[in-house]
Amino acid sequence: MLFDVTILGSNAAIPAHNRYPSAQVLNYNGNCFLIDCGEGAQFRMNHFGIKRARLDNIFISHLHGDHYYGLIGLLTSFNLNWREHALNIYGPAGLEEIIHVHLKHSQTELRFKINFHHLTADEPKIVYEDLMLTAETIVLSHRLPTTGFLFKEKKNLRKIIAEKITEYNIPHHLINDIKSGDDFIDEKGNVISNKELTLDPLPPRSYAYCSDTVYTENFVDQIKGVNTLYHEATFIHEHEPRALETFHTTSKQAAKVAKAANAGKLLLGHFSARYENLNLLLEEAREIFAESYLAEEGKIFSI
Amino acid sequence: MLFDVTILGSNAAIPAHNRYPSAQVLNYNGNCFLIDCGEGAQFRMNHFGIKRARLDNIFISHLHGDHYYGLIGLLTSFNLNWREHALNIYGPAGLEEIIHVHLKHSQTELRFKINFHHLTADEPKIVYEDLMLTAETIVLSHRLPTTGFLFKEKKNLRKIIAEKITEYNIPHHLINDIKSGDDFIDEKGNVISNKELTLDPLPPRSYAYCSDTVYTENFVDQIKGVNTLYHEATFIHEHEPRALETFHTTSKQAAKVAKAANAGKLLLGHFSARYENLNLLLEEAREIFAESYLAEEGKIFSI
Repeated sequence: MLFDVTILGSNAAIPAHNRYPSAQVLNYNGNCFLIDCGEGAQFRMNHFGIKRARLDNIFISHLHGDHYYGLIGLLTSFNLNWREHALNIYGPAGLEEIIHVHLKHSQTELRFKINFHHLTADEPKIVYEDLMLTAETIVLSHRLPTTGFLFKEKKNLRKIIAEKITEYNIPHHLINDIKSGDDFIDEKGNVISNKELTLDPLPPRSYAYCSDTVYTENFVDQIKGVNTLYHEATFIHEHEPRALETFHTTSKQAAKVAKAANAGKLLLGHFSARYENLNLLLEEAREIFAESYLAEEGKIFSI
Repeated sequence: MLFDVTILGSNAAIPAHNRYPSAQVLNYNGNCFLIDCGEGAQFRMNHFGIKRARLDNIFISHLHGDHYYGLIGLLTSFNLNWREHALNIYGPAGLEEIIHVHLKHSQTELRFKINFHHLTADEPKIVYEDLMLTAETIVLSHRLPTTGFLFKEKKNLRKIIAEKITEYNIPHHLINDIKSGDDFIDEKGNVISNKELTLDPLPPRSYAYCSDTVYTENFVDQIKGVNTLYHEATFIHEHEPRALETFHTTSKQAAKVAKAANAGKLLLGHFSARYENLNLLLEEAREIFAESYLAEEGKIFSI
């Protein structure tokens, strides 16, 4: 199953260096999730060939503008493109009022329904679930109530060994039970253990999005073993006091979180306008956590 | 005096072809006016090297998103850049509520004052005046109350002929009176007529911005003789029924307005997403009004 993330925006709030504010698209086998939606996110989707129409679920971490100012434009474009199927928006309750006020003044009645899922930043909650995935909130520590998001594959089924189906003449209707862990009992009453018939499944994959937050390891247990962690890394180490003051993180601190969580890899983003060149951010993270990468715009990371 | 306009955005509402929605910067000798502010306008300003800090007056024509969704991001950037001097916003009253709701949910108190000038689309009014210029509203016909804007230089002073100052020994403190039309009386009581001392001034220049509107010549008398007319030209002639239905204009109709107004030149903009190539829009306008140009992004037109 395809499971990757495309970076649409990598910059912090003050526009600079042709970087866009936070937005990314998580693609699970064609089902696309928009995570944050800074100004211009819809232009970036056009630019990187991601179809707006594939989005049914939008997750907004908090109500600082660089994380959601692109949302109203995206909704307007959906409407102008005659979208009729419902859209789910997961975010702070205030989003609903903001969108409502825009629509009121443009005298717009949307052709599609928006299901608002009001998120709070008090404790982790599963807020989305389908056959393959769940998404749960991560409680972050920022100036406004802010949630990250953890997307997890559900436990995969065991892999049945094709030759065993023939060898034991296993009927088709029992295959899913065996994949789920059942033993097989043949016509003569012999019990063939599940272990003989199947291989361990691939471990479920997961993606954690953590922006914006001051350095904290409070949520590390929740994301333990995550395959890919996106963590904000607004500042270099030298500017750690500024990070603390503004409730942001340095890339070193992000790397500490990745290490503590035993993450597979770390994506760094939400870069301050003061850095045109991002190499130092990356180098400082790699001193602590080798599998660190810059979440630069247009890059696609496989989970 | 420098008097030019830089096009930041040229597209209608649905994002396409890497074009941005409506926004332009009128520069009068360094005093910059932002006219409409579609999503991404602040990024375009960065891209074209226009300093945000030079803006003290922002004019918004109406509350369709492609004309103002970039405003809240721009205000946020002002604030993050420690702007402290007041900003004037001229636009429909609803803007104030929209901005207020955004600021409320991000718990932001701006460091600078916004003076809101609530515009109505019932009759033309002078809404801005300084030593050199006035700006007045133009009543347009669109689905929402919409005003265009006419920027006019004040009447220029007459040009004094340098040699005459020496010849008649004109004292310095009388120069401005003579530029304003006074005769000169020398020490012996001889009257030297103003006509002998001065040349006609350059005629005052003007710029009219007309977007969005259905085809109408209702405002032609107001903009008669305008040096440069920006007029929306959303559609080609073949799509005139669609223009009527959506309260927009074809480029031919825009050219008719320019001709009726005896404009110096016509800038066409607000292009529908359906046209990647804009040549036909331009050709159709030029059949009627030769001095027609595409208001493409990054272009600077001298008024």
